[in-house]
Amino acid sequence: MNKKMIVHILGKMMGVEALLLLLPAFVGWIYGESCAIWFVVTAAILFVFFLLTGLKKPGTPGLYGKDGLFIVSSAWILWSLFGALPFFLSGSIPNYMDAFFETVSGFTTTGSTILKNVEVLPHCMAFWRSFTHWVGGMGVLVFVMVLTNLDKQSSIHLMRAEVPGPEKDKLVPKARETAQILYGMYFVLTVILVVLLMAGGMNLFDSLVHAFGTAGTGGFSNYAASVGHFDSAYLDGVITVFMILFGINFNLYFFLAIREFKLAITNEELRAYLIIIGAAIAAITANIYHIYGSVLEAFRYAAFQVASIITTTGYATADYNLWPVFSKCVLAALMIVGACASSTGGGIKVSRLLIALKSIGKEVKQMAHPKSVNVVRLSGKKLGEDTIHNVYIYLMAYAILAIVSVLLVSIDNFDFETTVGSVLTTIGNVGPGLGLTGPVGSFADYSMFSKFVFCIDMLAGRLEIFPFLMLFSYMWRKKF
Amino acid sequence: MNKKMIVHILGKMMGVEALLLLLPAFVGWIYGESCAIWFVVTAAILFVFFLLTGLKKPGTPGLYGKDGLFIVSSAWILWSLFGALPFFLSGSIPNYMDAFFETVSGFTTTGSTILKNVEVLPHCMAFWRSFTHWVGGMGVLVFVMVLTNLDKQSSIHLMRAEVPGPEKDKLVPKARETAQILYGMYFVLTVILVVLLMAGGMNLFDSLVHAFGTAGTGGFSNYAASVGHFDSAYLDGVITVFMILFGINFNLYFFLAIREFKLAITNEELRAYLIIIGAAIAAITANIYHIYGSVLEAFRYAAFQVASIITTTGYATADYNLWPVFSKCVLAALMIVGACASSTGGGIKVSRLLIALKSIGKEVKQMAHPKSVNVVRLSGKKLGEDTIHNVYIYLMAYAILAIVSVLLVSIDNFDFETTVGSVLTTIGNVGPGLGLTGPVGSFADYSMFSKFVFCIDMLAGRLEIFPFLMLFSYMWRKKF
Repeated sequence: MNKKMIVHILGKMMGVEALLLLLPAFVGWIYGESCAIWFVVTAAILFVFFLLTGLKKPGTPGLYGKDGLFIVSSAWILWSLFGALPFFLSGSIPNYMDAFFETVSGFTTTGSTILKNVEVLPHCMAFWRSFTHWVGGMGVLVFVMVLTNLDKQSSIHLMRAEVPGPEKDKLVPKARETAQILYGMYFVLTVILVVLLMAGGMNLFDSLVHAFGTAGTGGFSNYAASVGHFDSAYLDGVITVFMILFGINFNLYFFLAIREFKLAITNEELRAYLIIIGAAIAAITANIYHIYGSVLEAFRYAAFQVASIITTTGYATADYNLWPVFSKCVLAALMIVGACASSTGGGIKVSRLLIALKSIGKEVKQMAHPKSVNVVRLSGKKLGEDTIHNVYIYLMAYAILAIVSVLLVSIDNFDFETTVGSVLTTIGNVGPGLGLTGPVGSFADYSMFSKFVFCIDMLAGRLEIFPFLMLFSYMWRKKF
Repeated sequence: MNKKMIVHILGKMMGVEALLLLLPAFVGWIYGESCAIWFVVTAAILFVFFLLTGLKKPGTPGLYGKDGLFIVSSAWILWSLFGALPFFLSGSIPNYMDAFFETVSGFTTTGSTILKNVEVLPHCMAFWRSFTHWVGGMGVLVFVMVLTNLDKQSSIHLMRAEVPGPEKDKLVPKARETAQILYGMYFVLTVILVVLLMAGGMNLFDSLVHAFGTAGTGGFSNYAASVGHFDSAYLDGVITVFMILFGINFNLYFFLAIREFKLAITNEELRAYLIIIGAAIAAITANIYHIYGSVLEAFRYAAFQVASIITTTGYATADYNLWPVFSKCVLAALMIVGACASSTGGGIKVSRLLIALKSIGKEVKQMAHPKSVNVVRLSGKKLGEDTIHNVYIYLMAYAILAIVSVLLVSIDNFDFETTVGSVLTTIGNVGPGLGLTGPVGSFADYSMFSKFVFCIDMLAGRLEIFPFLMLFSYMWRKKF
């Protein structure tokens, strides 16, 4: 391990967070909110760390693969620890553990909240809360790569550790350029969304908040009724479409941009993602038709909620807790599936589900014809044994983490549906769960211990478990 | 595929089931129950099939590996289809689908019931219901192997397809002898249990019923309150111990019998199984202490229920639905884990859980030290890539089957806890679920469609999914 380099990069990251905090401070200044001062204070603290460690590059700048994993998991924890300070210091969230939960939920683009009433938050706090979604969506490390200059190999190690999905493609040979291209597209799509939301009658502030939440597939709203507050079919439609767009592998947008249409269209994950969305919308529309009395109304709410849950955004236009159990189970299954790899969404990712299904199909074929040679292909490309093996291990780790979390959280003695729903929604980085943590509820009443478990779940879900497991295994053995 | 040989073996199996049906007929005759005639009628029908196909061995007697899988899944379905006839013809279970559910639940040693009141069943019906557990516990095919003579390779293919667990050991070179040894030990343990139960005041009939249910890890009782009916600490204790014993890999008893104590003691799966049982009992005892007011009482009920659920037996001495959610979640987790490989129990098996956990640990080590060589060992033995790979595929198939089943069954609109619990308990071959299908409930109110899904789950769980998937894939392609 290159400890000096790790400290140096983490120092740089503190500096970047200091810069980011000036944005909500500015928002607070516009609205004349005195609590904005706490963003400046937190930024100052972070700046001191930056001055101490982030300025001078160490003599040996190279990173090992495992250093990348270590930096990524530490970075997310540090950003959340400091990002929670303004909420706590200003008294907007009086308990630091709650503030930490809210910030982790923000950066991991989960969108679960401990706030019983979000509408009392000052503008600067609501802005920061949603802005963490936007930054976390593309990855805090990738963000740092855009701004600072690392050597090629180090950048690749960082990117590998942070970008979700079974395969890590680089778009262009240099990781930093790839990061810049990704953030560029992300920025452009977000701006388009803000414009479309304002065209539907939202003011600039609400547009920014909801665009951040949609782009990052986060789901924090500044209204208790979430997107349902606006009760506009146009806004529902725009957000539905953009949630689906942000759940797509960003590499595909790059292919479109460089006119490689074939690569985008033949993508099997995209096709499966759209088929699942279509099937889920149809099933739920049929299941809730009797509640809304009109196919169009049922379709509107079903489409929004399916898009919101599979992309792991978590906005709501209806309290799906009042829907029949079948609809709730479909949504719970979508929480597990999640969005496409290399998107801003969470869950196990559609591509991993495809690989699992194809592996099972291959096994059945192999049993019927033991001498035949069967391979698992995705978008026509043969997958390496290593990639497939990693998918299996990841899915098992995901399942075990979920089961252990359910056991730990169940000590709080909330009902079974709430317990399971809360765990699925946090590991999948979705936001609202089932039962008491559903769209109109919150995580407020959970014990501190459970909130801590949920923080681990959110971080593990966002970082795809293994960087996180490695950090713990290091801390356990005190080898760092 | 050797179609003639497949039909021949299935014909033989029909003959064996005809013989088995004479036992409940005899019980009915003793109790003077006229409905016993339907066992004779069913036996006669089966005997005709036997005469037509099971007598003359075809010219080419060899079997392929896939033939074994095909025979096993067909055999279990046929035995259940015919085994359900006495319930249906006698009117004890007026609906054939319900009778089929009950019989599948019996042979697969699940113990879920569609009967709202088991106590009205005539003795012969109650006997047959429990006897299916005993036969199914060791495997219907293995039972046939004990009685009939197949060539060596065919026997091995059948045994491979039916005996649960990640690795298939043969105890002695000939599969038929292995089967005889296994059934011998099974028979002896059952007799000991019957004697111990009678010593505790049970009559012979009740002893047989509960010994069959315990040995097969099935769980059917002839009392509505299950084992709780007797309210005896002695009987609770005896059944607790024997449930745990029947959840252990039967090969270990063979090692004990041939004085290979070291092989039995160093078995890692056994150690993990006992540790899980101990930990679960401790956790639940602490969690339900306030309900019973005494540690000893709480321990008694916790120990019984933990043993009952992890071994996938499903007897009950308390309505665990009234326990706190944590206890219920522990039990739900045990439903998934299940017993040891090559036992009569269901679930994913402790050894598969160990392999999954070790694989994840290996992965973390590999990430930290990419050049190190790490292998997965069980009981000191290095596991082959193929074995490990099959475990992964199996666990994924198990999870996907569970999720799809939850979606299908949720259409009935029972609450979330009932829906998830019913699926976990049937796939794991446990018996009672959570909520409405808990120890005092039944599966009676589910729709025919859901009952059909549960039958698939029970059979797939007992046969470890793949023989079953292969049968469907054949039927799909009509290649047989």
